[in-house]
Amino acid sequence: MGFESYVVVHNIAKRHNVGTLARSATAFGVSELILVGRRDFNSFGSHGSSAHLRFRHFHSLHDARQFLKEKDFDICGVEITENAMPVNQHPFKKSTAFLLGNEGTGLSAKECEICDFFVYIPQYGGGTASLNVTVAASIVLHHFGVWAGFGERSRDGNKFVVAERPVKQVRRNFCTETEDDIVEERKARRENAANGFFDENENNNSSSNMLDALFVDG
Amino acid sequence: MGFESYVVVHNIAKRHNVGTLARSATAFGVSELILVGRRDFNSFGSHGSSAHLRFRHFHSLHDARQFLKEKDFDICGVEITENAMPVNQHPFKKSTAFLLGNEGTGLSAKECEICDFFVYIPQYGGGTASLNVTVAASIVLHHFGVWAGFGERSRDGNKFVVAERPVKQVRRNFCTETEDDIVEERKARRENAANGFFDENENNNSSSNMLDALFVDG
Repeated sequence: MGFESYVVVHNIAKRHNVGTLARSATAFGVSELILVGRRDFNSFGSHGSSAHLRFRHFHSLHDARQFLKEKDFDICGVEITENAMPVNQHPFKKSTAFLLGNEGTGLSAKECEICDFFVYIPQYGGGTASLNVTVAASIVLHHFGVWAGFGERSRDGNKFVVAERPVKQVRRNFCTETEDDIVEERKARRENAANGFFDENENNNSSSNMLDALFVDG
Repeated sequence: MGFESYVVVHNIAKRHNVGTLARSATAFGVSELILVGRRDFNSFGSHGSSAHLRFRHFHSLHDARQFLKEKDFDICGVEITENAMPVNQHPFKKSTAFLLGNEGTGLSAKECEICDFFVYIPQYGGGTASLNVTVAASIVLHHFGVWAGFGERSRDGNKFVVAERPVKQVRRNFCTETEDDIVEERKARRENAANGFFDENENNNSSSNMLDALFVDG
């Protein structure tokens, strides 16, 4: 039986991180990238790879967990918690969705609640308290691919062969499903602009100006 | 006997990559970051970690190799070559310097020549031909740390403990050793501005405006 991996991102603060994350995710055979809460992102850094990934959106962590449990996925938090296992020990059992924390603060208590277990990446030097979130995610996804025995992609010279670009599922770097969602999203954005909801974890202005996300695809 | 790891960067094109690279390098216990050729870099993304890393500069790959061989280091190219070993198989024997390629084109023939062996990171999906260079480097350095049995850094809650910030060795994000070097560097920069030497691999303007590097430390 084949295993699958998903990535779950909750209210990511620095949207440009999603691009590089998408690039690593597709490299390591991730099937879906699930955005919870805010759904706008910037695909800069993805080098077009975000077109090769399925995206899904949930409004709440609870909804995301329900979906994953119906699919019999484990939910693995990537966080340095007391009982977290070193990721290189491959503490995996079945298809797994990896929950990544906000870049600044890591996983919140609420986020930790929906996790079945945690992995962390051992560090050896004293120069930094934590890794860049995309770097951490990439190391974890790499290890899951090794554990799951994913088939290696064929190569051409010193590059892996890129699949044909599928029809772009993600419209305007904005993870939407229906027209209703778009209307709802616009309403939410107006409300968010008023109360700064998405900025609760980080005091930047990335959520206030979304136009740049529409045109960038590094 | 303890092992050590170094990172060797040759004419890196996107200077902002060095910052995140430095952060990962110190997290994974790298002892030195060696810049070959161009020596200016931008520590944005390092979160101050570049202050915890020794920097060294050589003008040529040949000089770098000579230094490393005198120290009895293996030189490992991070590249998807015909005979490259999957990094998760830990094909290491002793202290190792990891040579990273230019972001766009990977390792050149000249760079490959100084390597003793190569590692690559298996990919499983069809969405990208290669990984972001910092992501690739981080995965390799992580595996070396696991193989070498580096002692794990102590933690405080969900963060690794950061050492006290040492006296900043790197003046103005510019890897210099002596006043002579500075004079020489200025001369080189004038020449480079005239002949575009450092832009041979990538047609951007990152080498022409160095002022931004002096003030940014993310």
